[in-house]
Amino acid sequence: MSTTGVEHPEDERRRARMTVARIARIAGVSAPTVSRVINGQSGVASDTRQRVEEVIRAHGYRRPEGSGAAAILELVFHAVESPWALEIIQGVSRAAREHDLAVVLTELQGQLTPGRGWTEQILAHRPTGVVAVFSELTVEQQSQLASRSIPLVVLDPTGEPLHQTPSVGATNWTGGLVATRHLLELGHRRIAMICGPVEWPCCRARLDGYRAAMDAAGVEVDPDLVRIHPLYVEGGLAGATELLRLPDPPTAIFTANDLQSVGVYQAARRAGVGIPDRLSVVGFDDLSFAEWAMPPLTTIRQPLAQMGATSVELVVALAAGERLPQHRIELATTLVVRESTAPPG
Amino acid sequence: MSTTGVEHPEDERRRARMTVARIARIAGVSAPTVSRVINGQSGVASDTRQRVEEVIRAHGYRRPEGSGAAAILELVFHAVESPWALEIIQGVSRAAREHDLAVVLTELQGQLTPGRGWTEQILAHRPTGVVAVFSELTVEQQSQLASRSIPLVVLDPTGEPLHQTPSVGATNWTGGLVATRHLLELGHRRIAMICGPVEWPCCRARLDGYRAAMDAAGVEVDPDLVRIHPLYVEGGLAGATELLRLPDPPTAIFTANDLQSVGVYQAARRAGVGIPDRLSVVGFDDLSFAEWAMPPLTTIRQPLAQMGATSVELVVALAAGERLPQHRIELATTLVVRESTAPPG
Repeated sequence: MSTTGVEHPEDERRRARMTVARIARIAGVSAPTVSRVINGQSGVASDTRQRVEEVIRAHGYRRPEGSGAAAILELVFHAVESPWALEIIQGVSRAAREHDLAVVLTELQGQLTPGRGWTEQILAHRPTGVVAVFSELTVEQQSQLASRSIPLVVLDPTGEPLHQTPSVGATNWTGGLVATRHLLELGHRRIAMICGPVEWPCCRARLDGYRAAMDAAGVEVDPDLVRIHPLYVEGGLAGATELLRLPDPPTAIFTANDLQSVGVYQAARRAGVGIPDRLSVVGFDDLSFAEWAMPPLTTIRQPLAQMGATSVELVVALAAGERLPQHRIELATTLVVRESTAPPG
Repeated sequence: MSTTGVEHPEDERRRARMTVARIARIAGVSAPTVSRVINGQSGVASDTRQRVEEVIRAHGYRRPEGSGAAAILELVFHAVESPWALEIIQGVSRAAREHDLAVVLTELQGQLTPGRGWTEQILAHRPTGVVAVFSELTVEQQSQLASRSIPLVVLDPTGEPLHQTPSVGATNWTGGLVATRHLLELGHRRIAMICGPVEWPCCRARLDGYRAAMDAAGVEVDPDLVRIHPLYVEGGLAGATELLRLPDPPTAIFTANDLQSVGVYQAARRAGVGIPDRLSVVGFDDLSFAEWAMPPLTTIRQPLAQMGATSVELVVALAAGERLPQHRIELATTLVVRESTAPPG
């Protein structure tokens, strides 16, 4: 079984027959060496390890049933610092429980790519699969998982969509379009966007949705009104502070996430600009605090718990050797209109 | 080794010699049956299981070194729904990584006590230890862990402080005292408290701290000003709505957590009562949003990440057979003064 799901039944049968001993014979090494590679242990020379992995890749290997302890799902986060992470953890936990999987949570402390020790740790757990949230695995890490038939699913990938790796996200482009169209329909024309790093496809898609809505309405995008800042409160605060100081400031700001909107609220308060009387604000995510903001925040809802659960379902399907009908699933975003948007004052 | 840490070196040596075979002989059952009990598998009659567990309790048993896969720490949450959980997860993750422990996260979906299947799942993982956050294990669950030398540490226990079980919390009583004293020093006398369920020691301690400060200042507590509501935004909203409708409403409200303070902000906004001009508000926790509330929230900071890390340290010490100098550790709370408190208007 491969994580791409494109495999023929014959491969499946051949793989089922592969044993550690056969892999050792083909690779010309001892069986304990093969075991060490399979279990992610150290003490194997790098070229030997590579030879064994090539054999496993070519011929396949599936761990005998019942050899592991309780089944484990690895959940890897770049950081567990925003309420954004909570909803994903909830969705993953619930779906994992339905499949009798225990969730091992790894936080990369803000790093996007796990360190070298991570793969060994993962392989030692012999997980049913890995869900990586807003993180990137190196090609080597991906290939180590693939060679052991450990499926990998990426949630909201940060890098180029990898066609090899199944992923789950939200309809970011449509969300950006709908947010901006809402502001246009209220009569706004000076609409700014504070976006996150555009090298991340989720951010780029939200920005493109904003541009598409502006274009469709025949409103030219003033380059001064597009600001790139980190996806934190501080980023929204910095972006809105710049925007509100412009000679011709915007009457509405769409931000790439709810945390940035909180920063916009702060900047508006400091500048004495009332929301929504003089400034409309639209966020993205619909985290729990959006509804309790003052005024309650109009935002684009991402179904984060459902995205987490869907990632688990994909892992389980791949682990069972099923073929995925599609490798990229985007769940729908929805506009939630609250009190932070109004016609321009 | 026992989770209470009160054990003599002789016990330690005797335990080291106990094997599955010896336990089987003493209990008069087969070795596979003992293994099944130790590993939390089903298929053992209840009285047989009980007999084996009694032998293990009496004579001890420690799994041979190196028999398990990667070392695991079980982290059990009653719910992962508040940013409160995020900081604890961060603290636990970081401390666990330093000890090369993988964190298995279990969420009880709001239940305070894990269901029957939970113990079997835990035992199958053979964890180094268990940290239970705001959850209660049954006496049977505790004894199953103890009989397998799996240490348990409780973070912010909900029930009666169990002297048998080591626990980590914050100085809740002092926090309540300091919050109330801050309001008294600003000149408030009509000071209300919205508290969580008082059968939970952390809530009761905060309420007692409030009462102690009022008593020390010679201010009588008006029973109308003490309201018990759930520790959520909705609880604070309900409590403050009641309080602001009193013929003689309070000029200040101290809430048992920050989420309740957010509810107080909502109620004040609906009632047209300005914060802090006409109403001062003090929270408890210092979650990330407190600093971004409008106005920024004065609150009592709980070192949640540090409490999580301390729980892991206790588990590791117990697993290493160390005696704990104390079974209850309370980390200090601190008053963080922001803009939600001012002299009465």
